[in-house]
Amino acid sequence: MKIPGKIAIFGGGTWATALAKIVLTRETHINWYMRRPDQIEDFIKVGHNPSYLSNVPFNLDRITFYSDINEMVKNSDTIILAVPSPFLKSHLDKLTVSLKDKFIISAIKGIIPPENLVVTDYLAQYQGIPVENIAIVGGPCHAEEIALERLTYPTIACPDRSKAAVVADVFNNRFVKASTSVDVIGIELAAVLKNVYAIAAGVCHGLKYGDNFQAVLVSNAVSEMERFVKAVSPINRNINESAYMGDLLVTCYSSFSRNRTFGSMIGKGYSVKAAQIEMEMIAEGYYGVKCIMEMNESYNVDMPIADTVYNILYEKAPARAEIKRLREILK
Amino acid sequence: MKIPGKIAIFGGGTWATALAKIVLTRETHINWYMRRPDQIEDFIKVGHNPSYLSNVPFNLDRITFYSDINEMVKNSDTIILAVPSPFLKSHLDKLTVSLKDKFIISAIKGIIPPENLVVTDYLAQYQGIPVENIAIVGGPCHAEEIALERLTYPTIACPDRSKAAVVADVFNNRFVKASTSVDVIGIELAAVLKNVYAIAAGVCHGLKYGDNFQAVLVSNAVSEMERFVKAVSPINRNINESAYMGDLLVTCYSSFSRNRTFGSMIGKGYSVKAAQIEMEMIAEGYYGVKCIMEMNESYNVDMPIADTVYNILYEKAPARAEIKRLREILK
Repeated sequence: MKIPGKIAIFGGGTWATALAKIVLTRETHINWYMRRPDQIEDFIKVGHNPSYLSNVPFNLDRITFYSDINEMVKNSDTIILAVPSPFLKSHLDKLTVSLKDKFIISAIKGIIPPENLVVTDYLAQYQGIPVENIAIVGGPCHAEEIALERLTYPTIACPDRSKAAVVADVFNNRFVKASTSVDVIGIELAAVLKNVYAIAAGVCHGLKYGDNFQAVLVSNAVSEMERFVKAVSPINRNINESAYMGDLLVTCYSSFSRNRTFGSMIGKGYSVKAAQIEMEMIAEGYYGVKCIMEMNESYNVDMPIADTVYNILYEKAPARAEIKRLREILK
Repeated sequence: MKIPGKIAIFGGGTWATALAKIVLTRETHINWYMRRPDQIEDFIKVGHNPSYLSNVPFNLDRITFYSDINEMVKNSDTIILAVPSPFLKSHLDKLTVSLKDKFIISAIKGIIPPENLVVTDYLAQYQGIPVENIAIVGGPCHAEEIALERLTYPTIACPDRSKAAVVADVFNNRFVKASTSVDVIGIELAAVLKNVYAIAAGVCHGLKYGDNFQAVLVSNAVSEMERFVKAVSPINRNINESAYMGDLLVTCYSSFSRNRTFGSMIGKGYSVKAAQIEMEMIAEGYYGVKCIMEMNESYNVDMPIADTVYNILYEKAPARAEIKRLREILK
């Protein structure tokens, strides 16, 4: 197998478009899979993604588009997954060719329902991909900022660090500085948890709690994240590195954060359904918190913030009362 | 000596006013020292601080004002210092009575120039106050939010934890949840450092770096803070607690942060002098970074972010080039 060989982007959304921009800064040509042929047609007509990051122009000579997932897989060596986690399965269900001899980079920060597995576990268990051929992209990476070429520090994690280094080399350019790690599960769980904590931050913001409280909430969230990740994978890691804490900070504090916006609407009194309809976007933390709660049935980690988010989103607990309870636990 | 006994607020600014509001929520009466008699006159006339947090009304029957520092000290048992650190000495120089039998709470987050000492060291060495009779207020506490009664979690630190608990008890009310600590030097240094890092965050913001980069900068700042505080005081502490990381977060991310605003102006091209004049306020981190650099001559901790701020503010190094150098070191 060739790494990276021919690289494919898998997805047509904001994050996929940012990743295409990154990869095309070093590679001369990419494959790009989008489910909808009409989106590809429009893309070719206007020279940019018609729906997302439309401020990023692309040279069409350097892209081969596919709406047929099997054709794309046949013609690619490294595939960068960048669809919302709840939709990954419906894409992969169409596969008639194998992914086993491909190198897969998951840029999906989320959980696959209903199995409630992190993406790498899902790929290994359900697609039979060897774990040493799966890498992930972690760290603070708002796509909107990559579109603007604002300096970004992703972390590429793979059990085989030399493969992570190959991917980092593809990513590195004037506006991207990628580092490498072998802590796939830790970074993947941190990426799920930060969305949950961003929902909590949003709920508190919606309820008119201030910056002093947010700082306390986020500090407590870092410790909660550290406890949970350590329980699941007790290796030596510094939770304050960018791939863990940095990702949490950008998600809790950035106005680009969908999860924070979703939480904020809940805090202001929207129902979960109404907030989802109004946003027209998936807040990954909604699925993430359910998975974390289910995982935590085995680990029994003290997770008051995740508990609170779960109670609000799934148990219809009133946000105001739940946060009032939470604030007595924080310190 | 009585703790708390009669409590006095020392200072007439924003933070002093917020502290007066906190203390008067539990105590029936306070002493309040302000240098300028005309400010006291105006306060009495309008029923609130005429210059700062003017949205906070006070019941004048519950306050005895002093513009004579010696009269205030004579009539008080516990004195809460809340003046900008560069001005503390000029106030204390007027003392003819001793502070030695008073309990002192420093709410000053800063450094005393030109001795370049943290406030508790200055009080112990130059005012002869026993360290067990000095407490500090740390943690994320923007005064503007306390004025709005937004929930705030300060940390009261004193080598004698039972005295810290007495102070916490005075502070605790419906919008303040105080915890206690014995790590005076660690929290004091964290409070100085966070202003330095907020200046760095501001400079990067002024130079149009985005949220992804800010998250990396702040994550690196937490680790830099941990390294320095550990070198100075190698006790067991969790740097992710509110008193350390929480204070850093609120200062780096809040729009109420003076240090961030100051840094932002520098990043946009203002000179240090011009930014200081324009703001009409002291950015404590300006003095803080000089002190930290001088302290670090003994400790030799790797502090790339503090170095960068020092070079920009004191060595006239161009901000753009300095941050460009820094960003190669961060990860």
